Amino acid sequence: MKIAIAQINTRTGDFDYNGLKVVEAIRWAKKQSADIVAFPHYVLSGCPLGDLPFYKDFLEKQYQTLRAIADMSSGIKTVVGYKFYDEEKVVVLYNGLMEYINEFSLHKLTVVPTAEPQNFDGKEGIILQLGSSIFYHQGIESRKKAIQGTSGACNIFINRVGGEMGIIFDGGSLIAVNGVLHTLPYFEEAYAIVDTEECSVNIYPFLSYKALDLSDKISFIHRALTMGIRDFFEKQSFQKAIIGLSGGIDSAVVAALTCEALGAENVWGILLPSQFSSDHSVKDAVGLAQNLGCKHNIIPIKESYDAIYQSVDPIFQNLPFDVAEENIQARIRGMIIMALSNKFGHIMLNTSNKSEMAVGYGTLYGDSCGALSVMGDLYKTEVFELAHFINREREIIPLNAIQKPPSAELRPDQKDSDSLPPYHILDAILYAHIEERLGVSEIVDKGLEPDLTVKILKMVASGEYKRKQVPPIIQVSSRSFGHGREIPLSSLWNRK
Amino acid sequence: MKIAIAQINTRTGDFDYNGLKVVEAIRWAKKQSADIVAFPHYVLSGCPLGDLPFYKDFLEKQYQTLRAIADMSSGIKTVVGYKFYDEEKVVVLYNGLMEYINEFSLHKLTVVPTAEPQNFDGKEGIILQLGSSIFYHQGIESRKKAIQGTSGACNIFINRVGGEMGIIFDGGSLIAVNGVLHTLPYFEEAYAIVDTEECSVNIYPFLSYKALDLSDKISFIHRALTMGIRDFFEKQSFQKAIIGLSGGIDSAVVAALTCEALGAENVWGILLPSQFSSDHSVKDAVGLAQNLGCKHNIIPIKESYDAIYQSVDPIFQNLPFDVAEENIQARIRGMIIMALSNKFGHIMLNTSNKSEMAVGYGTLYGDSCGALSVMGDLYKTEVFELAHFINREREIIPLNAIQKPPSAELRPDQKDSDSLPPYHILDAILYAHIEERLGVSEIVDKGLEPDLTVKILKMVASGEYKRKQVPPIIQVSSRSFGHGREIPLSSLWNRK
Repeated sequence: MKIAIAQINTRTGDFDYNGLKVVEAIRWAKKQSADIVAFPHYVLSGCPLGDLPFYKDFLEKQYQTLRAIADMSSGIKTVVGYKFYDEEKVVVLYNGLMEYINEFSLHKLTVVPTAEPQNFDGKEGIILQLGSSIFYHQGIESRKKAIQGTSGACNIFINRVGGEMGIIFDGGSLIAVNGVLHTLPYFEEAYAIVDTEECSVNIYPFLSYKALDLSDKISFIHRALTMGIRDFFEKQSFQKAIIGLSGGIDSAVVAALTCEALGAENVWGILLPSQFSSDHSVKDAVGLAQNLGCKHNIIPIKESYDAIYQSVDPIFQNLPFDVAEENIQARIRGMIIMALSNKFGHIMLNTSNKSEMAVGYGTLYGDSCGALSVMGDLYKTEVFELAHFINREREIIPLNAIQKPPSAELRPDQKDSDSLPPYHILDAILYAHIEERLGVSEIVDKGLEPDLTVKILKMVASGEYKRKQVPPIIQVSSRSFGHGREIPLSSLWNRK
Repeated sequence: MKIAIAQINTRTGDFDYNGLKVVEAIRWAKKQSADIVAFPHYVLSGCPLGDLPFYKDFLEKQYQTLRAIADMSSGIKTVVGYKFYDEEKVVVLYNGLMEYINEFSLHKLTVVPTAEPQNFDGKEGIILQLGSSIFYHQGIESRKKAIQGTSGACNIFINRVGGEMGIIFDGGSLIAVNGVLHTLPYFEEAYAIVDTEECSVNIYPFLSYKALDLSDKISFIHRALTMGIRDFFEKQSFQKAIIGLSGGIDSAVVAALTCEALGAENVWGILLPSQFSSDHSVKDAVGLAQNLGCKHNIIPIKESYDAIYQSVDPIFQNLPFDVAEENIQARIRGMIIMALSNKFGHIMLNTSNKSEMAVGYGTLYGDSCGALSVMGDLYKTEVFELAHFINREREIIPLNAIQKPPSAELRPDQKDSDSLPPYHILDAILYAHIEERLGVSEIVDKGLEPDLTVKILKMVASGEYKRKQVPPIIQVSSRSFGHGREIPLSSLWNRK
């Protein structure tokens, strides 16, 4: 039996578009004389779905699309997984017929709709898993282990591929035949043909495909983020991005990733210096824009700051400069970028990282603005790694932006290190608490300083309310803010 | 057997505080010669819990608290429900012992940890349900029906009471004895004694208790919102609120509710008129503050607007006035209120309603600012009902604020009705789509206009990204944005 696998990138809620992609794959599979063609789970509806399968009109459109594909599936069995209310379903479309199945048996073939790859040790025959496994960098290996552990003749896990705002499906469908594991490309569409009699697997990537080194976490993250940006713009029919460039490393990395995803001609960098901005900040930001070849503008914010300050001055009276004045600056920046976004239709991208989001070091409605958070699931130390990766062939991100001490530049001579420990220490505490779910005493047992650990965990707990109001964050870890981690806003745990 | 019921308001993640409240209830129950004292589910940890029960240090503290209470439970059996990783557990604490049970049997008593009340038709004996049922106005009756349907001798559902940011537990614990249903107070703490031999129920409210008329949806919502505000401030150790007063009905209702919840001395109203604000807006807002007796300040935003406009003018060039300029005004307002909040520690409350949030009629980082959305689950027509309810005894909200045509006043002579249908029609479409999960053709079948329905559903779908970044919304319906409704941000359904 010849099984065609179609690892295709579809769009949530766009049955017409998805239906065409499925029909294209059916045509290709027939040309390859395949007996069966199979797709990732939810291929017609896209996913995640939330409440959509509880809407009757949504289900009706899904049925119509299945019906239309059944009519076109002559001479080949088309296997599609979908959701109906809260039930996971599989249907085989064949010569105008729709055969609903729970477990589909044909020539010893078992079809299973699933999120993550299942191990079917001992089962006989051919297993076809219609999957929808979300990317996180720690998950690549465990997926392989699940499939490799199967002792049966053939275990196929077809994964979704494509970015869905905060969620990335990374593809990398897995085919285990007689103990040999084949992997479809990551972050790309591809077809494959599995010949279960000859025990052969042929993979047909849509693009020129360069395999990723599995041991290299950063290159996976780099691909995930660029696909995340690209698919967000394509699927939402946006073309151009606007990004605030501070001269620091975070906005530089986001700008570089966005230029790679959309082309530099679609990226607009805005420099918003205040009276506290250093000369090197403007220089580094301009240098970055020049290296990337993207348009940039400089809009000083001092006059706006003065006007707003003046309006509240009668109430502030002579109270000392504090976080209120700092936040006004950050919020003016957010407001001006949003004004340009509203006027010209460029979409604002958020440049916060996971370390600062974790401790609430950032201004709500200021730094937190944006339609998509590109790096909100990357610790600051990972942002440095990614910057070096981006610079692997030539200096794109000015070295000074990478090497200078990180600063928000919201008051004279401010440094991140005034209020935070060095990032390698901060990130060690955060990783232990967020990723490994450890409490104070367990973190201290790892060698971290007790008072500092208590202080950081309190900052994490107290910052939860800010993270409630941030844009969707592209997930790359197992515990992203937004996916894989859920702390109730009303919790007082670690707060006292 | 005498069973004491303690419908008490505890705090998420604050075991010390909650432990003291439990001990207090145990003492009271012993004085009443009760054999057993029982609590709502999660009484020691509070709830919602999210990932907290996956933290070992959290579980350790929970165990220590249980242990300490067991040591104090001499002569009375204390029944506590809690979470351990993802398992729901019940423990009976008695004379220093901890008896872990799945189903606890003592004198025909069955203990069940549950979210919603369960019907146990046919079961014999006494059922004790440790509950945690979230308030929504449609749910009050169905809860009663579940308990009333039980034919057994005694079915007790102890509900949580208290506000947890967006979630309200409304109490109203239910006791069915020999077919007679007794209800504990809603939105208040109370004790009760059930004597299963005498078939008697005595209820002891903590405060002077005035029963709510179940048929009156608005009085329930009114109580839910004021408790939601009060508990948010108390549990988070905040004292004072700051609210932007536009002169319109939404901010007026929020200010009135907040004065009721916190006292007028803890509420600060800020008027932020622009060149487009009408005289009556300022007059109505000042009139409201005077009626409420709360402090207010007027901060004109024209100079701030001009300064920001000037900074972007070289880039805007001569493009016509549009949503970009409108949003600048709304964002200056958000920024100034946040600056005052940061400087003086007053907490900003959000004043958006469900109708405008649904169609995306509002400015992200402007109107959407705030720590808590008080009315984000109330349709505009319900806001009018609530305004009349607040004015039931005297004119608190100026009648002009209720009667004038709603307007955002972001350009000359703007009215909501320029871009939206009348609110009773808009809300009919929104209710059908959001609450009843109907699509275009089903809504048209109800008599709504087809083109308008398509347009509104598209606005709802397109506005999803704004709702991702709003504060937690106090839930009062079955389909609040944030609870009970989940539409994926990447969905293109209804968007084309």
